[in-house]
Amino acid sequence: MRMPARSESELAFLTIEQAARLLRKKSISSPDLIEVALARIGRFNPTLNAFITVVAGQARAEARHAEKQLRRPGTKSLLCGIPLSIKDNFLTRGVRTTAGSLILTNFVPGEDSDVVQKLTHAGAIILGKTNMHEFAYGITNENPHYGPSRNPWDLDRITGGSSGGSAAALAMGIGYAATGTDTGGSIRIPAALCGIVGLKPTFGLVSVKGVVPLAKTLDHAGPMARSVTDVCIILDALAGDYPQGAIRPDPRKLRKNRPRKFRIGWPKQYFFERIDREVHDAIESAAKCFKSLGASIKQVSLTGLEHSVEPSTNIALAEATQYHESQGYFPAQAGKYGDDVRYRLELGRKVLAADYLHALDVKREITQEFDAVFENVDAILAPTLPIAAPRIGEKEVVIGGEKETVRSALVRLNRPANLTGHPAISIPCGFTRSGLPIGLQLIGPHWSEARLLSIALAYEDATEWHKRHPQLA
Amino acid sequence: MRMPARSESELAFLTIEQAARLLRKKSISSPDLIEVALARIGRFNPTLNAFITVVAGQARAEARHAEKQLRRPGTKSLLCGIPLSIKDNFLTRGVRTTAGSLILTNFVPGEDSDVVQKLTHAGAIILGKTNMHEFAYGITNENPHYGPSRNPWDLDRITGGSSGGSAAALAMGIGYAATGTDTGGSIRIPAALCGIVGLKPTFGLVSVKGVVPLAKTLDHAGPMARSVTDVCIILDALAGDYPQGAIRPDPRKLRKNRPRKFRIGWPKQYFFERIDREVHDAIESAAKCFKSLGASIKQVSLTGLEHSVEPSTNIALAEATQYHESQGYFPAQAGKYGDDVRYRLELGRKVLAADYLHALDVKREITQEFDAVFENVDAILAPTLPIAAPRIGEKEVVIGGEKETVRSALVRLNRPANLTGHPAISIPCGFTRSGLPIGLQLIGPHWSEARLLSIALAYEDATEWHKRHPQLA
Repeated sequence: MRMPARSESELAFLTIEQAARLLRKKSISSPDLIEVALARIGRFNPTLNAFITVVAGQARAEARHAEKQLRRPGTKSLLCGIPLSIKDNFLTRGVRTTAGSLILTNFVPGEDSDVVQKLTHAGAIILGKTNMHEFAYGITNENPHYGPSRNPWDLDRITGGSSGGSAAALAMGIGYAATGTDTGGSIRIPAALCGIVGLKPTFGLVSVKGVVPLAKTLDHAGPMARSVTDVCIILDALAGDYPQGAIRPDPRKLRKNRPRKFRIGWPKQYFFERIDREVHDAIESAAKCFKSLGASIKQVSLTGLEHSVEPSTNIALAEATQYHESQGYFPAQAGKYGDDVRYRLELGRKVLAADYLHALDVKREITQEFDAVFENVDAILAPTLPIAAPRIGEKEVVIGGEKETVRSALVRLNRPANLTGHPAISIPCGFTRSGLPIGLQLIGPHWSEARLLSIALAYEDATEWHKRHPQLA
Repeated sequence: MRMPARSESELAFLTIEQAARLLRKKSISSPDLIEVALARIGRFNPTLNAFITVVAGQARAEARHAEKQLRRPGTKSLLCGIPLSIKDNFLTRGVRTTAGSLILTNFVPGEDSDVVQKLTHAGAIILGKTNMHEFAYGITNENPHYGPSRNPWDLDRITGGSSGGSAAALAMGIGYAATGTDTGGSIRIPAALCGIVGLKPTFGLVSVKGVVPLAKTLDHAGPMARSVTDVCIILDALAGDYPQGAIRPDPRKLRKNRPRKFRIGWPKQYFFERIDREVHDAIESAAKCFKSLGASIKQVSLTGLEHSVEPSTNIALAEATQYHESQGYFPAQAGKYGDDVRYRLELGRKVLAADYLHALDVKREITQEFDAVFENVDAILAPTLPIAAPRIGEKEVVIGGEKETVRSALVRLNRPANLTGHPAISIPCGFTRSGLPIGLQLIGPHWSEARLLSIALAYEDATEWHKRHPQLA
């Protein structure tokens, strides 16, 4: 290995654009980047448990191939030779795909998921498959089969989930991006708890073909990375067609196309109820920052959300159980599930069809309510989560003197955008006094990723939160 | 009233084309046609109970208006000045729309349903709103609030339903066409039992906006008439856009475009199980007739259907209950329902969401199975019903020595095309020894109405069944 003229840590935290530039300048090679990533996996993964499967051999071979591609004339994707990680519910040809489950522990797919196909087609190098909540059916990443993933900011704390391994790896400078899926916050929750950026795109924009489903009407796949621009680069590779009239986000134009004036909605209901004081303060500071960037802050009303919690839970419960039944996993192999997932699958069996159909009506109504708000604002600002990372094993938290289950606390501000299919991004916006990351959430109109990412980038450029990294021995 | 040079009965049983020609030749006026129809309503409706509401005054006024239109130069729709009937679950502006229920007994809509809008825009004259099974949720038309409609071929027998009033009126020569809705056979069942023609079009071809829904994923609206060409004329007025590549049925070209050679599928499973001997013989004779018209008869296999009965019932039950709940009808006004409908609404509450979602999977699979069959045949031939009209009040029938509920017997051969959304037509194909009509069913590929109607017309042209009319004092 030819040693690059930078420290391993410097290389690990490059942006994708920086890494791509160094690759093209031959200051570094793709195999170098792979070795940096594999070295960090070797060093940190035993602690973080961010990966279920690492494909070192395959990654090295593909990096050599990418390096040859890079040395040939012609335009290459920015992702050519760039190492990244794939959540373990994306099917990978020839690489086992457990979905964090015991049931699929030996499952080696014959085909790639659409997302993996697109990334490898762009020349990206897969490092491995990241740890996740079993079958993506939970938000703590306390996986009973592969062990919990651990938050690099405090190893006693959860990464959040279900894309927790992806978030932990990124926070620790392993790979330059990762994929996640988000049915009730599973991209945004770990992004917020680990201090990285995660985007749940507009429903349908990124194909979920070849993803082990959780709840089909709420499932989204999307990018996770350490910066808004890197998220945009991955989105660009993953996204399907936009409808006519919508603008496809271009990572090179995000900064240029940043709106001079924009309107940020501050929800009067729901999103700021039962929020930890430190989180509340961080979002308020962010609102001031947006103001200084040209935003007007408008109070917006979303009155139906408090009635959407049970309906959206019913959709997730029913669809998840039906999928697991249809595959012969549940109840046939009930003993192979972790207690929490089995319990929810049992709950899902009891949801009544009329209540499920009512929930779909509520889904439509809530979507219309958001759409009406988006007539007047470019994005809604909210906390991603009411709290910072809970401890591993913790079942309940106290927020403003009130007890709440960890599950409810982590899901409730995220589920609305799953119900409505609106794009939602979580970006770092501060730290608690005990040094845990806080994330803010921006939710935009359908297919508005270009503007949403521009606004997020403006905030990122004006702040330093994304530049702080966790320190592990 | 200027007396036309034909008997009332001759006028009553004209085809739409014949009536339209006489109107244009001034041999007859639209008000004449209205008076013929109203006279027959006056004479026969007290016995048949085919109408819940008759709008004599409005019909007369509109006929005078249509007559003026007809006397002006310029092309008119074939339907201009033609009287027809509307099932009472299609919203009619200013005319009460009960859906056969007590709950809506005083409901006067402010808007027309799309179907009514299209028919009146074409100049058709509405005679009244036809009797139906309460909320279209049954197939006998034994309406506890407005009384049963009676089969003109035997007044002790049911018309079938839920579009039974429309079928009875047409069989008795009242109006030249009618609308129906079909969620589990509600157009085809009464068409077969009353000896007329009824088409359930491809799912989505005819708008159900402004129709009181029963089960949204199975609901279809469609035309009923005394001949295939008349059904095609009404379909032409009702149909929305066809997808690219599909042929829009043209009533003037049905005969010309009749295929010289075509392939009729004879199902090996399901459709000929537990069929009354007389019905079976009639369909076999029809198959011979089709052969003589250039058809090859091919055995086709539809193995999944026997497993589709419970799933399709679950879809109907769950969606119906959820709709009635969403409107505040059920359980709030449970006492206002007939026992049978209330019982099914209660059943629908118990359907589990996972079973409903499984049913949607089955729906997709059965649709694909039919689609595969349609690679090899132009239409599937089957009985519309395993039996001729049961007696009013009868709950069970015996078919081939086996007992079966009337509901199951009348629904089971019809529900498949609701599940798959394929177009299906019922046309007269014989009579039992006791003089009750028998119907055959042709099911075609999605959007194949043009060919399906051509094939049906070829059969109709080769037979005399549709020319026989019931005799009532």
